[in-house]
Amino acid sequence: MTRLPASIEKVVGALGKLPSIGPKTAQRLTFHLLKQPPDDARSLAAAIGALHEGVRLCETCHYFAENERCDVCNDPRRDLSEVCVVEDALNVLGLERTGAYHGLYHVLGGALSPLKDRGPDDLQIESLMRRLRDGAFREVILATNPTVEGEATAVYLARLIGPLGIRTSRLAQGLPAGGDLEYTDALTLQRAFEGRRNYDLEP
Amino acid sequence: MTRLPASIEKVVGALGKLPSIGPKTAQRLTFHLLKQPPDDARSLAAAIGALHEGVRLCETCHYFAENERCDVCNDPRRDLSEVCVVEDALNVLGLERTGAYHGLYHVLGGALSPLKDRGPDDLQIESLMRRLRDGAFREVILATNPTVEGEATAVYLARLIGPLGIRTSRLAQGLPAGGDLEYTDALTLQRAFEGRRNYDLEP
Repeated sequence: MTRLPASIEKVVGALGKLPSIGPKTAQRLTFHLLKQPPDDARSLAAAIGALHEGVRLCETCHYFAENERCDVCNDPRRDLSEVCVVEDALNVLGLERTGAYHGLYHVLGGALSPLKDRGPDDLQIESLMRRLRDGAFREVILATNPTVEGEATAVYLARLIGPLGIRTSRLAQGLPAGGDLEYTDALTLQRAFEGRRNYDLEP
Repeated sequence: MTRLPASIEKVVGALGKLPSIGPKTAQRLTFHLLKQPPDDARSLAAAIGALHEGVRLCETCHYFAENERCDVCNDPRRDLSEVCVVEDALNVLGLERTGAYHGLYHVLGGALSPLKDRGPDDLQIESLMRRLRDGAFREVILATNPTVEGEATAVYLARLIGPLGIRTSRLAQGLPAGGDLEYTDALTLQRAFEGRRNYDLEP
């Protein structure tokens, strides 16, 4: 089989290391870049090269920030009485997109996982507890993923937070919007049953 | 909605311009890069930045090359009597992967398309005809895509090549391997019928 020029192989290899990009997609992306003006590739390169320099983690909530504190923590319009605990910074973006939440966040940086050798000390739990003790929070919303690890993390945190007397809640689990009962797995259906709400129509 | 740091937004924007990468994937890739050591992002940036510098087009067949001629044209083991005409350099890779072809290639750089205002002068047709006149080719395999534009390009080329007295062939069209008759479109089925071959079993 014929070899590609080294500079092409390098880009294919580097792109192929990214998640969800297989060797064929990496090749297609590289060939696309080759067909575009060189400046397109150069500006992409410059952006990626400068990625880490312009980003740090918020000292308070560990979300991405440009200075010591992130945009959320700095926003005077946010509700300081609520904190939403998520595994990953990407989750903050998803929740912000809903527009349904106006409180603060706390990014754990993962979930407890004995298999991955990730314990409480590897997550931002110590700083969460400090924030809860020092702040005037009325509610902690545990928004870790509805996975085994995310559930275990939520239970662990709920037990830690309990003695502080702050209301602790967990995101609802049930049928996804637009879903179909026929194709819903048993665990999701069970949780949708357990979490069912009264259907109070206006008289 | 909260804003991300500018350096993140830049990478999300630049990645999102690539084909098949939507805004959500661009975000996920960027966040992945952020979680990896900065050197990973820097080496990806360096590879993309140097992409165009190490690549040129083969003077003979217009496939990617590091020097004047590409690896295929330089390979003394290739069959010099066959040339396979493709639309895109990516097609060369796909054909090479089959291991079924050992001749030379000619990359047109697209297909004839009145809608995209792409005529014969915009493709590498002139240089193909020069190669055919000067070389000792016995066969030209037209491997343009089985689309309206690819078919039109193949017909156009076949008419041009006719007077040269070189055998001109077209890749077979029919059922894809592993396909299902039930889900095959009418045009493909029709072509599979037209192109049917005798089933000669050894006695």
